Amino acid sequence: MNPIRVTVWNEYRHERTEEAVARVYPEGIHNCIAAFLREAGFAVRTATLDEPEHGLTQEVLDDTDVLFWWGHMAHGEVKDEIVERVYRRVMDGMGMVVLHSGHASKIMQKLMGTNSGELKWREIGEKEILWAVSPSHPILRGLPEKIVIEHEEMYGEFFNIPDPDELVLISWFGGGNVFRSGLCYKRGLGKLFYFRPGHESFPIYYQKEVKQILINAANWASPAQLPTITTGHTPQPIVEPAR
Amino acid sequence: MNPIRVTVWNEYRHERTEEAVARVYPEGIHNCIAAFLREAGFAVRTATLDEPEHGLTQEVLDDTDVLFWWGHMAHGEVKDEIVERVYRRVMDGMGMVVLHSGHASKIMQKLMGTNSGELKWREIGEKEILWAVSPSHPILRGLPEKIVIEHEEMYGEFFNIPDPDELVLISWFGGGNVFRSGLCYKRGLGKLFYFRPGHESFPIYYQKEVKQILINAANWASPAQLPTITTGHTPQPIVEPAR
Amino acid sequence: MNPIRVTVWNEYRHERTEEAVARVYPEGIHNCIAAFLREAGFAVRTATLDEPEHGLTQEVLDDTDVLFWWGHMAHGEVKDEIVERVYRRVMDGMGMVVLHSGHASKIMQKLMGTNSGELKWREIGEKEILWAVSPSHPILRGLPEKIVIEHEEMYGEFFNIPDPDELVLISWFGGGNVFRSGLCYKRGLGKLFYFRPGHESFPIYYQKEVKQILINAANWASPAQLPTITTGHTPQPIVEPAR
Amino acid sequence: MNPIRVTVWNEYRHERTEEAVARVYPEGIHNCIAAFLREAGFAVRTATLDEPEHGLTQEVLDDTDVLFWWGHMAHGEVKDEIVERVYRRVMDGMGMVVLHSGHASKIMQKLMGTNSGELKWREIGEKEILWAVSPSHPILRGLPEKIVIEHEEMYGEFFNIPDPDELVLISWFGGGNVFRSGLCYKRGLGKLFYFRPGHESFPIYYQKEVKQILINAANWASPAQLPTITTGHTPQPIVEPAR
Repeated sequence: MNPIRVTVWNEYRHERTEEAVARVYPEGIHNCIAAFLREAGFAVRTATLDEPEHGLTQEVLDDTDVLFWWGHMAHGEVKDEIVERVYRRVMDGMGMVVLHSGHASKIMQKLMGTNSGELKWREIGEKEILWAVSPSHPILRGLPEKIVIEHEEMYGEFFNIPDPDELVLISWFGGGNVFRSGLCYKRGLGKLFYFRPGHESFPIYYQKEVKQILINAANWASPAQLPTITTGHTPQPIVEPAR
Repeated sequence: MNPIRVTVWNEYRHERTEEAVARVYPEGIHNCIAAFLREAGFAVRTATLDEPEHGLTQEVLDDTDVLFWWGHMAHGEVKDEIVERVYRRVMDGMGMVVLHSGHASKIMQKLMGTNSGELKWREIGEKEILWAVSPSHPILRGLPEKIVIEHEEMYGEFFNIPDPDELVLISWFGGGNVFRSGLCYKRGLGKLFYFRPGHESFPIYYQKEVKQILINAANWASPAQLPTITTGHTPQPIVEPAR
Repeated sequence: MNPIRVTVWNEYRHERTEEAVARVYPEGIHNCIAAFLREAGFAVRTATLDEPEHGLTQEVLDDTDVLFWWGHMAHGEVKDEIVERVYRRVMDGMGMVVLHSGHASKIMQKLMGTNSGELKWREIGEKEILWAVSPSHPILRGLPEKIVIEHEEMYGEFFNIPDPDELVLISWFGGGNVFRSGLCYKRGLGKLFYFRPGHESFPIYYQKEVKQILINAANWASPAQLPTITTGHTPQPIVEPAR
Repeated sequence: MNPIRVTVWNEYRHERTEEAVARVYPEGIHNCIAAFLREAGFAVRTATLDEPEHGLTQEVLDDTDVLFWWGHMAHGEVKDEIVERVYRRVMDGMGMVVLHSGHASKIMQKLMGTNSGELKWREIGEKEILWAVSPSHPILRGLPEKIVIEHEEMYGEFFNIPDPDELVLISWFGGGNVFRSGLCYKRGLGKLFYFRPGHESFPIYYQKEVKQILINAANWASPAQLPTITTGHTPQPIVEPAR
């Protein structure tokens, strides 16, 4: 069986402009994620905002089973035509894993049908505990029932999203907030997993459990051998209707 | 208690250009629907595509609890800024009832996050039977377990929508197809009900059970007294995090 | 319109055997809840474990729209035939509001299809914050986006329940746990709301927001005018099948 | 990787008492299903009602990843203690695939929390068409968008089940009925798939698409490497609660 083809997309700005972030992710968040996915057997490439067409040409997307998305400060710079291109690929079956501040990206809002940029946030490095609420879900394969992240940015409810098809993880924050942190959606023939942790200034993507979740998510979001769906005008009935 | 304020929006083109349609809905589909909603106690106004701002000024929308939407041949003529305005009102709590071919409207696609224009269709006037699969739902209050429509346009699966929050009705068609025909969604603080029947050339909106469903849907979609939601930067924790 | 008929069932043991509990609920938890429901316009009666047939005769249940359930130390003493009687009434449309430790009751387990007695718990009087995650839900009508309870028993995930049809509230606890605390289920023609707070030694049911939620829940769970459902052998097809 | 261990349970009465059924399934339905599952690489055993402990000893269940269940005329003869034993294994992660008239079995009703025996039925050998409504679901891997079964027993809505976690297939019947025919549920750590077709007098389980669905369902229902869940009294908080 051919390996699942993953493209890790990163805005890649913080790492080049903020020293504190560069210390955590010297090669960029995308290369950190790409490395452990590669090690897990996926065929991985990366793409970033400042490449031509943001690195997401039609050819790249057609060759992608699962697209990871990390963005934060430059959501507005992502071109609408590229958003539309990604959207159409999701409709056709490409999976997506949207990370952390990617909740406010154009593609996330387009796929949610809501202003998913809306949530509470706070950056005091408080403790986060993620609790499994759907322990039999394949995305939690091999994970413990809770994951502790010592220092993270807080995201708090209300998070303006549609009720997820499956709620996998709920986060507890030291300052008194909760958040729906691991969310599964079907959209068209594609699947989307949103995973909350991953602020640029904390070394979250080096944590063992986080890596395992993202590996599992890539497997889960990868399209199966899909039915051939026909739509549109189908003038011939399948059976002759009784009169 | 003040009556619920409903605005019935109609593209209102077929009725003015096709004699067969004009015979069924001489005053337009919007006025047919408005009439029975008024009789049921709602405060109803109408709006149509060819009015300035499609009849959907900010003032009208701010004064609307539930917006009905019927469109078909001119989805593309609905201005993006009006779609955006309707969308923001849904985020803030306005309910929507999207009818029949409104599945392919810009506002429906924006709220679904999918290409909800995709489905099978056929126009041979075959029989439709709608079956209740969520009989305790308030939208089915006072209805029988099935509704028979003698002649309708067929819509068939696969219908490219997110799994509904609640599936209320499934349609059977004489020619061999099925369709998810009564669908509830939450989006932002608003609620949306999609109801399949209602082709312009069949007198569906005069049928007693259809009227009852739409009356129930207006009640269901009307916003409750909503919580005041705060989002954005909330620098103060609610409790002092343990260190 | 006739008022909605509520029966508040309480095990009523703690209040008679533990002085600390009697101080909080001198008339029993059932009478505390009954009082504010009556004030809100419901027609309320109470029933307790040690009455004949636990106070839940067929006549009482047939005359009940919504049954509240509080139990804790004596789940095992509830007779199976009474559980079966309650279950059949739920199938026929009676609503239920199951409170706090009622999660482990026989009737809750029977309606869930899981061992809903399983969860984590701790009794150190820590702080609980309930966050709205479905703010447009009628059960949150008139409520704020969060409810703070200063001292409560902790319940923590994993809670062994089916994914709820609607998740309304998530609890944060001072000691690091989260819990799905406001849950809606449809079962047969009936609706069930589970509400987590309500330990016998804390005065939760005197708190204004808690009262409002339970009032809203009684309204929500009350059966609508239900379709007449037919099941079983229906030898005559509705249309003559095409051959 | 070790093969997934499947146990196919069959009531095995019709095949021994009715000649017409014996002609279709001379070795019993269980052996027909076991054969194509074996060919697909599963480690398969069978068990039947009239074996000691119905063939479902604790040892057999402990050695089973996914249990298939076909029953019809003798649901009442299945001993409650065996039902309880199967239920506990599902809570611990064993998957189940419940077939056709198994909807009315004790174990199905116990796991549903409703009287799932209730539905309409008719036996005139009418045509059934199953339509995919969740085409990206792994259970539909490699399948077409619709499956036609020329002659089947009809099951019609209302089917008294909880809303499924995922609705995969909807059936159309020639006589005017529809049915939710492919249903996914999580219960405890286990997963359950209900698949409607499979009447004893029609050769459904020889049909290629049906075989493929059941192979996919066995893969889907097989437990992943599950989190170790702790429940019960956990007196130590994870963080020291703020006072």
